[in-house]
Amino acid sequence: MTDFDQPHGNIAAKTVKEDGIASGQIIRRKQDGTLEYQRDDLTIEEPLEIRIGRKTVATTMRTPGHDEELAAGFLLSEGIIRASDTIDKFSRPSGARNRDNIITVTLAEGVKAKLNSAQRFGTISSSCGICGKESIAAIRQNFAPIEPAKDVRIHFETLLSLPALLRHNQGDFARTGGIHAAGIFTLDGGPRLVREDIGRHNAVDKVIGRVFLDRDLPLSPCILLVSGRASFEIMQKALSAGIPIVASVSAPSTLAMEFARQCNQTLVGFLRPPSFNIYSHTERIILD
Amino acid sequence: MTDFDQPHGNIAAKTVKEDGIASGQIIRRKQDGTLEYQRDDLTIEEPLEIRIGRKTVATTMRTPGHDEELAAGFLLSEGIIRASDTIDKFSRPSGARNRDNIITVTLAEGVKAKLNSAQRFGTISSSCGICGKESIAAIRQNFAPIEPAKDVRIHFETLLSLPALLRHNQGDFARTGGIHAAGIFTLDGGPRLVREDIGRHNAVDKVIGRVFLDRDLPLSPCILLVSGRASFEIMQKALSAGIPIVASVSAPSTLAMEFARQCNQTLVGFLRPPSFNIYSHTERIILD
Repeated sequence: MTDFDQPHGNIAAKTVKEDGIASGQIIRRKQDGTLEYQRDDLTIEEPLEIRIGRKTVATTMRTPGHDEELAAGFLLSEGIIRASDTIDKFSRPSGARNRDNIITVTLAEGVKAKLNSAQRFGTISSSCGICGKESIAAIRQNFAPIEPAKDVRIHFETLLSLPALLRHNQGDFARTGGIHAAGIFTLDGGPRLVREDIGRHNAVDKVIGRVFLDRDLPLSPCILLVSGRASFEIMQKALSAGIPIVASVSAPSTLAMEFARQCNQTLVGFLRPPSFNIYSHTERIILD
Repeated sequence: MTDFDQPHGNIAAKTVKEDGIASGQIIRRKQDGTLEYQRDDLTIEEPLEIRIGRKTVATTMRTPGHDEELAAGFLLSEGIIRASDTIDKFSRPSGARNRDNIITVTLAEGVKAKLNSAQRFGTISSSCGICGKESIAAIRQNFAPIEPAKDVRIHFETLLSLPALLRHNQGDFARTGGIHAAGIFTLDGGPRLVREDIGRHNAVDKVIGRVFLDRDLPLSPCILLVSGRASFEIMQKALSAGIPIVASVSAPSTLAMEFARQCNQTLVGFLRPPSFNIYSHTERIILD
């Protein structure tokens, strides 16, 4: 045991870096009570500054990788650009010391960014009026509610299959235990796209950004599954891509539920096979 | 089953509101496969606008309750006010429609708010230089690192007792499954303070804010336990209150680990009895 009595035993050292994971040396106390030095995979967290031209729109703590998707999804889901807008190119500022942590978006000619919306990244602009209802109302001005459509339904058994599919498609990242995932699936349970990030919102921005960059908006009917809680902002981001059904393996908030009701979204929570809860618009879940 | 074939079966209705919890009616699919209508407790999520005088400093999505602590903790942990500063009073704007979602902080005479720091709420100010290392450096200018002290140590068995103590002290909120908790414990495992919020950061701000308002800073040696992941910002917030040991039931990020190493904080992750990981400054954990 004297190994551990080092003065300032600061042994955590980041040594390897690949695909959003770094490896650090740690002390682990195992289930049987013994101690060991071990390598541990950690999710990388680094800032990303998103610029439109020379203007900084936001900076978010993210897991590196898929930065273009993150930037595009963020701009779309925060109402700064619209689904029909086009991004001309992404670039990294030449000469900047930390160019990997800055991404510059150049919008196509004629596209006008709605930059005042950007203030509510991580925060809500005070112009919302500062109550849940008014926040919803303000956001609804940016995005149309989901259209009712009789044939947009998912069978509950398909729904129950999704958490395992999400994990399966998460790949190596899942081993860090510290990363969120968001996945888009077809209504017959086909995985379409899975992205991961240390931030819940970022993972959703990445999948939405991918769809935007592929010019696949409006999306054909699909479901968004998130590994974390369903907050108000997750519902907003889903709405920005016209996603009618959102499922979360965890709890929704009151505001997420109210948002879903008003915007005609189906919200499923605690999707933990063999059970789940439905919080809004149950008509899209085939229950028999 | 025909009960569920209602047109637009939107049955989620918020009906009761008490202590940060609302109740909605939902459809639940139980483990045995049967369906039932049931009430479900949901965590309330509402915006809180924090003002200093007439200036809006930030707006955060939070669970109502302990708003004064949240505001104070936010201002302290974001470097806008210092531990030695004093808040004169809190008030709600008279005449505002949503006064419950706005809190106005009046600083004591002579206290000067460092308002440019406020921009990094939820985001990092671009002045940080936009790389993990420089973000850490910028924050270290605001807060002194933890002083090395030989007697500030916690026994691993005490450490292992904390998650159960945190849950025990969470009270009714724990039933929603959608809330984060942060607790401060003495180094012999005594619960000192537990707060909850839908936002990880907010729960930490609330405990730190309480300590600030009680004029208990600098804190005697203690440990902060958080129910979620340990990100960079959680470490920063702990440092703002001089907390030497931070434990998380989940994963830390790379930047959290680097921050902890540089600021002389002990970081414990995956605290899930009977095991845990130590990522930095192991000298504070008594392992035998």
